[in-house]
Amino acid sequence: MTEPLDQESRHSNRMQRKKEVVDGKIAAAQEERGVLVINTGNGKGKSSAAFGVVARALGHGLKVGVVQFVKGRSDTGEEAFFRQQPNVAWHVGGEGFTWETQDKERDARAAQAAWEVACGHLSNPEIGLVVLDEMTYAFKYGWLELDEVIAKLLTRPHMQHVIITGRAAPQALREAADTVSDIGMEKHAFQSGIKAMPGLEF
Amino acid sequence: MTEPLDQESRHSNRMQRKKEVVDGKIAAAQEERGVLVINTGNGKGKSSAAFGVVARALGHGLKVGVVQFVKGRSDTGEEAFFRQQPNVAWHVGGEGFTWETQDKERDARAAQAAWEVACGHLSNPEIGLVVLDEMTYAFKYGWLELDEVIAKLLTRPHMQHVIITGRAAPQALREAADTVSDIGMEKHAFQSGIKAMPGLEF
Repeated sequence: MTEPLDQESRHSNRMQRKKEVVDGKIAAAQEERGVLVINTGNGKGKSSAAFGVVARALGHGLKVGVVQFVKGRSDTGEEAFFRQQPNVAWHVGGEGFTWETQDKERDARAAQAAWEVACGHLSNPEIGLVVLDEMTYAFKYGWLELDEVIAKLLTRPHMQHVIITGRAAPQALREAADTVSDIGMEKHAFQSGIKAMPGLEF
Repeated sequence: MTEPLDQESRHSNRMQRKKEVVDGKIAAAQEERGVLVINTGNGKGKSSAAFGVVARALGHGLKVGVVQFVKGRSDTGEEAFFRQQPNVAWHVGGEGFTWETQDKERDARAAQAAWEVACGHLSNPEIGLVVLDEMTYAFKYGWLELDEVIAKLLTRPHMQHVIITGRAAPQALREAADTVSDIGMEKHAFQSGIKAMPGLEF
């Protein structure tokens, strides 16, 4: 009857070693400051991960500014939900994906107007989290100057977190960031003929 | 002076073709039903992407059940925030990562109790979205039977969405899912010595 006890004991020892490694890494990371996060890649979840952090930040009493650079549709659940929250400022900047509008000048103006709203947040130390949703398209289509954006990001208030989402984040932006998650699509419901569902996809 | 106009025109034609391709794909996807999503991989954003969809679902008036299989800490912003929402049922099941407790039997019991709560949601058509947060660890450590879980997932209410998060989702679970996002870590603030920040990391 010693076998099960030995197994338990081995499990416990292994877990103890794991705990020591994890605790050591956590103890070593002690700098407290705002973090610049990029959620990029072709998979689902880049924007929703940012919106999950909005909920998290609100739960800790932070104020949040969200700027959406591309307005895909006007009936999103996240906008309906977070606009009701007193500590959230929500701005929708884009006029729709550029292949919807087919008007490059109008898209560029909308992105620049959104960037001005973002700059207001990025200058305001009372805003604990700024989400720049689908901002990477503004670089892809040349609506915004990457250097100017990075300079502004790097001089924002010390404790302010920023999350930038969108496919194909430029390399210089990745280098400026503290955390970069690359969300890959293994498969998508779309491919099986399932319609974009309210409450899940938008 | 025709050059800028030609460029504009080429841009517009290219966007028009893109729009046709995207519209065609959207038109082809017409099935309406609940979607099973898995957010896996080693990067940041698996759970926060699920919590962003919680906000999205609430914005569309859905009821949401969240079951956390691993209790990493008791002061998360998402729990504080979403527990205040009338349409959210929030259950924290785990006793901490297994290397915190070093007690395999207790962890298994906590996971099984969490699964019973999940089964209640997965039998209730009034719940539009079920989040099974960090559930994959329950398979890794043998706390739950994968076959039993998949069978329950596949017989849930027709319009109910489910999101499962956690590293290393088992292959059979990926096959059962409609959407699988694999979140890779390109870099993490942790590696530069930045502490886990409230409102961003938890």
